[in-house]
Amino acid sequence: MAKLLEKVNSPADLKKFRLRQLEKLTEELREVIVKTVAETGGHLAPNLGVIELTVALHYVFDSPKDKIVWDVGHQAYAHKLLTGRRDKFHTLRQYGGIAGFPKRSESPHDIVDVGHSSTSISAALGLVTAQDFLKQEGKVVVVIGDGSMTAGLAFEGLNNAGHLKKDLIVILNDNEMSISPNVGALSSFLSRKLTGPVARRLKRELESFVSHLPGGEHLVTAIRKSEDAIKCLLTPGMLFEALGFRYVGPIPGHNLETLIDTLRNVKNLEGPTLVHVLTKKGKGYRPAEEEPEKFHGLGPFDIKTGKPKTSKNKPPSYTSVFSKTMVRLGEMEPRLVAITAAMPSGTGLKAFSERFPERFFDVGIAEQHAVTFAAGLALGGMIPVCAIYSTFLQRAFDQIIHDVALTNLHVVFAIDRAGIVGEDGPTHQGQFDLTYLRLIPNMIVMAPKDENELQHMLYTAVKCQGPVAVRYPRGAGEGASLDWELKEIPIGKGEIFREGEDILLVAIGNMVYPALKAADLLAKEGLSATVINARFVKPLDEDLITEWALRTGRVVTIEENTLLGGFGSAVLELFQQKGLRFPVKRIGLPDKFIEHGAPALLREKYGLTPEKIAEEVKDWLLHQERPDIRVLTA
Amino acid sequence: MAKLLEKVNSPADLKKFRLRQLEKLTEELREVIVKTVAETGGHLAPNLGVIELTVALHYVFDSPKDKIVWDVGHQAYAHKLLTGRRDKFHTLRQYGGIAGFPKRSESPHDIVDVGHSSTSISAALGLVTAQDFLKQEGKVVVVIGDGSMTAGLAFEGLNNAGHLKKDLIVILNDNEMSISPNVGALSSFLSRKLTGPVARRLKRELESFVSHLPGGEHLVTAIRKSEDAIKCLLTPGMLFEALGFRYVGPIPGHNLETLIDTLRNVKNLEGPTLVHVLTKKGKGYRPAEEEPEKFHGLGPFDIKTGKPKTSKNKPPSYTSVFSKTMVRLGEMEPRLVAITAAMPSGTGLKAFSERFPERFFDVGIAEQHAVTFAAGLALGGMIPVCAIYSTFLQRAFDQIIHDVALTNLHVVFAIDRAGIVGEDGPTHQGQFDLTYLRLIPNMIVMAPKDENELQHMLYTAVKCQGPVAVRYPRGAGEGASLDWELKEIPIGKGEIFREGEDILLVAIGNMVYPALKAADLLAKEGLSATVINARFVKPLDEDLITEWALRTGRVVTIEENTLLGGFGSAVLELFQQKGLRFPVKRIGLPDKFIEHGAPALLREKYGLTPEKIAEEVKDWLLHQERPDIRVLTA
Repeated sequence: MAKLLEKVNSPADLKKFRLRQLEKLTEELREVIVKTVAETGGHLAPNLGVIELTVALHYVFDSPKDKIVWDVGHQAYAHKLLTGRRDKFHTLRQYGGIAGFPKRSESPHDIVDVGHSSTSISAALGLVTAQDFLKQEGKVVVVIGDGSMTAGLAFEGLNNAGHLKKDLIVILNDNEMSISPNVGALSSFLSRKLTGPVARRLKRELESFVSHLPGGEHLVTAIRKSEDAIKCLLTPGMLFEALGFRYVGPIPGHNLETLIDTLRNVKNLEGPTLVHVLTKKGKGYRPAEEEPEKFHGLGPFDIKTGKPKTSKNKPPSYTSVFSKTMVRLGEMEPRLVAITAAMPSGTGLKAFSERFPERFFDVGIAEQHAVTFAAGLALGGMIPVCAIYSTFLQRAFDQIIHDVALTNLHVVFAIDRAGIVGEDGPTHQGQFDLTYLRLIPNMIVMAPKDENELQHMLYTAVKCQGPVAVRYPRGAGEGASLDWELKEIPIGKGEIFREGEDILLVAIGNMVYPALKAADLLAKEGLSATVINARFVKPLDEDLITEWALRTGRVVTIEENTLLGGFGSAVLELFQQKGLRFPVKRIGLPDKFIEHGAPALLREKYGLTPEKIAEEVKDWLLHQERPDIRVLTA
Repeated sequence: MAKLLEKVNSPADLKKFRLRQLEKLTEELREVIVKTVAETGGHLAPNLGVIELTVALHYVFDSPKDKIVWDVGHQAYAHKLLTGRRDKFHTLRQYGGIAGFPKRSESPHDIVDVGHSSTSISAALGLVTAQDFLKQEGKVVVVIGDGSMTAGLAFEGLNNAGHLKKDLIVILNDNEMSISPNVGALSSFLSRKLTGPVARRLKRELESFVSHLPGGEHLVTAIRKSEDAIKCLLTPGMLFEALGFRYVGPIPGHNLETLIDTLRNVKNLEGPTLVHVLTKKGKGYRPAEEEPEKFHGLGPFDIKTGKPKTSKNKPPSYTSVFSKTMVRLGEMEPRLVAITAAMPSGTGLKAFSERFPERFFDVGIAEQHAVTFAAGLALGGMIPVCAIYSTFLQRAFDQIIHDVALTNLHVVFAIDRAGIVGEDGPTHQGQFDLTYLRLIPNMIVMAPKDENELQHMLYTAVKCQGPVAVRYPRGAGEGASLDWELKEIPIGKGEIFREGEDILLVAIGNMVYPALKAADLLAKEGLSATVINARFVKPLDEDLITEWALRTGRVVTIEENTLLGGFGSAVLELFQQKGLRFPVKRIGLPDKFIEHGAPALLREKYGLTPEKIAEEVKDWLLHQERPDIRVLTA
């Protein structure tokens, strides 16, 4: 039978449908999304939760004249399917294919390029303000999850929107989740679980108020008996009304008719309006409904069982080694505490949280607070480990500088997803951390060559003093065997792997093994390379690198980080300070945002595979005479 | 007569005083603070506003066992005077003297090193959590201004504190100001100006509620007539109660007796408590009461008149040139809008705000939102200029990357207070921006050599495309005459100032004139230097720098920015990419937080004066043979 979805080439086509057809369409959308994500991997549960909402939005509003701004953007699959990208949808998250997040270059219906949380209200407020200036028409509608609301940026946006009183519609997509079950006082408030102090005060004031009304005295007793009724006065809307928003809701988020009616009603209201919609993450696909956290974002899976299609015998991931090491460290060190910003599973801290619930803190999507809270814990004598992905840690840049490093506090930053992250694309690549951490005084910055070194580095980080970062990549480790005994690595000491005479390859982190393999390939061409695992970007192992640079006379640095100010630049700075003028080649990520695609493919493209490295080095050596060492050391 | 303050060597001494004596003490504190700041400059109005609160806090609590955490820390002068630093207080903000902000190395009573806003709740929550783990006693008390509450970080801290339910006392120091009059919906709420939608809803619900009570029907009419009474139900506390705090207040903040009673009452309460204290900025010194914004932070002034002790005939400051240029640009370009995060005066945007009120946005202390809001405005077709100090822009690092640069949006960042800021110390120095901006793809980063070039660069920034930053220093310009006609500077083009044969000095921003003067000094020693004003850190003028490097054979880079990954490193990267191995010396700020002190003194210390630069260059040249250019270009 002909599918309705096949008739939808743009949102205009949707408007011809009747309610029943729209309902049928949501089923089709669900089916396509589950089928596609089962093949490509992606964000499943958030997308299944907003299918009715997406259909209702495109039915009621006129995109792109009306602008729909998706917060985070990991819930825009149905939006993409309805806005002319149905035929390409099977290329989701593949190199050159449809992005997993909104992307302006893909469609005029994608209003912002996004991937980090909680930016939508601020961006939309800017958009609607610009429209007013330029006398353009069109509503601006934000869809933001309750998890995203815990981030300070969302609050700043609300506060300013309430002040500017622009015509802005904010749809609070409340699934009582961020990625994992939501935390924070705001969350209790939204779910009406909070009542204590507010209810008591309101009751007291109501008594006082009523007692002053003519004939009201005898009502005081009645009120005293009516705590439940009082609680009903406290709507989740109060908070938003306090910030200057009109509050509408809560609305059942999977009932198309109600959604359409509500959106039609609010469409032409003036001033900031918040529509509170209750949805269910993973809606309509049972495995995702049952385990929404697991199905938040995942790789390919079997539709029938919901079980991941695992590649056979992959080595354990860096995340899982971090996870296990944290439990061991927690057992050794009673002052160890762990902090996540709404990512207990993603970071691997779940095991720690189960073993040491009292020493585990999920602060919600609030990276800034996570870091400053860690600073306070460190000031108070604890040893906090802040586990935040490389790209999200950017949001706490000032807190690392001002709250941690300035006071030289011992906070450990466990930075997963550093370097190329892959399918999630430019908003998620961890391409800047070596540079933005290295510039901070007092920081120690290290990166392990494999999962075994990761555990030793974590141990070292917990044992040392001051702010210390360990950054490691997404995905499977190198298959290194894991030492049982954890060892302290001397701070600022690299290690040498093979000694060659023709060139020095200095690599950091996950580029050490590719460098070693490149050295093997070079050996086949008769070039003998020394390979150093730098281990530390800061402090650099100046002696080791200098010694072998002098022995070989030519140096290549290799890193999975931007070439601007990164590891290679640190090596350039070292040589410059020592007055050593070696020929140096730096291999790393170029000065651009790295697109989405499979990590292996991106590494190939950006020259970070052993083959590409060997090729580059060989080509470069062709044009490099070995300098006279006597000149260098004069 | 013997002063009471002279008897106070630690807070313990305070506890012997009676109320009258405490009141007398507040007068003495006021006098000392006004006298000292009139000499040294500093934050006057915020300190005068919290004198009674400080005395009450130290009277009721036992610092340092009880920990008082000052948000921002620009209001800790009375605290410093009462905690053993009376004798050194005249050295306030001077090099080697008492810092203008809390500083752990000064006193055990200073709990956190601070200077940026809104970190206190998060840090204090960490402290109290650590105390619980380590079974230590002592209350943790935060003092935070209503301005600081608008920052997302404060909200994140409140949200998490309400969730963890720790014994934390937050004192909301509400002076209805941040630095300039407060903005945002939260502010209206605190001052009870907001009532509309919340009152209407509550009234409606109260009617419905009362009508269901036995005999309550006839009260509905009464309620309908009682809007004012309903409004009284809406206390500023509601918001905090909603987030899980007990709310106490509002309390008059200059009545010692009430303050002491209140603090005694809340001292032993369990769970998070918020005490709302109403204070007046500048309290007790009329000029500061009348113009609290002007007296927020200022240089030396005449006590009688409150007028600044201006140095004679100083050239106009960079800020004032920015201020005037913004008005001119606003006249030329109707799409130009300006954004500040609570700093209309400090940034110089006040003139623009008066000339174009509808195109000016003060978003409160909310740098993250400022940048993402700017992104939205740019998406919508406006040209936003975000004026944020270098050190505060760190807080919007992720927003610059993710919301602006990723989409290559045309947002202008006007970055005042870059480089050495001086007396405000390490939290305020703008020592990192060239590095943290340069690493961002698509960014253009420029710095003017003087105030005349600043205006051309601003014009250029408005004319060009994509994200563009102009960073300039605090304080007086070079006395350059200001061209009437604004000119576009070609992107990525530096300029050459003098042509010499022995060495190339490449300087950026406010280091260009010192470099020129250093060249004069070198000329006296028989060394002829080429001087290049790089203008752009990104994109570098690769051709110009390379050409003159090849002509002179030896290169010195000079910047007022960290040497890690900064301008000099960009030059190293350039030479490395071109395979040119010049002897290079980089002059800039070392890898440490720069202490407080007069800028001239700090520049002397860190080798950034013409004399020091000339000396360094000369010494270095002694050990540098000129390389064989043929080798370099081989």
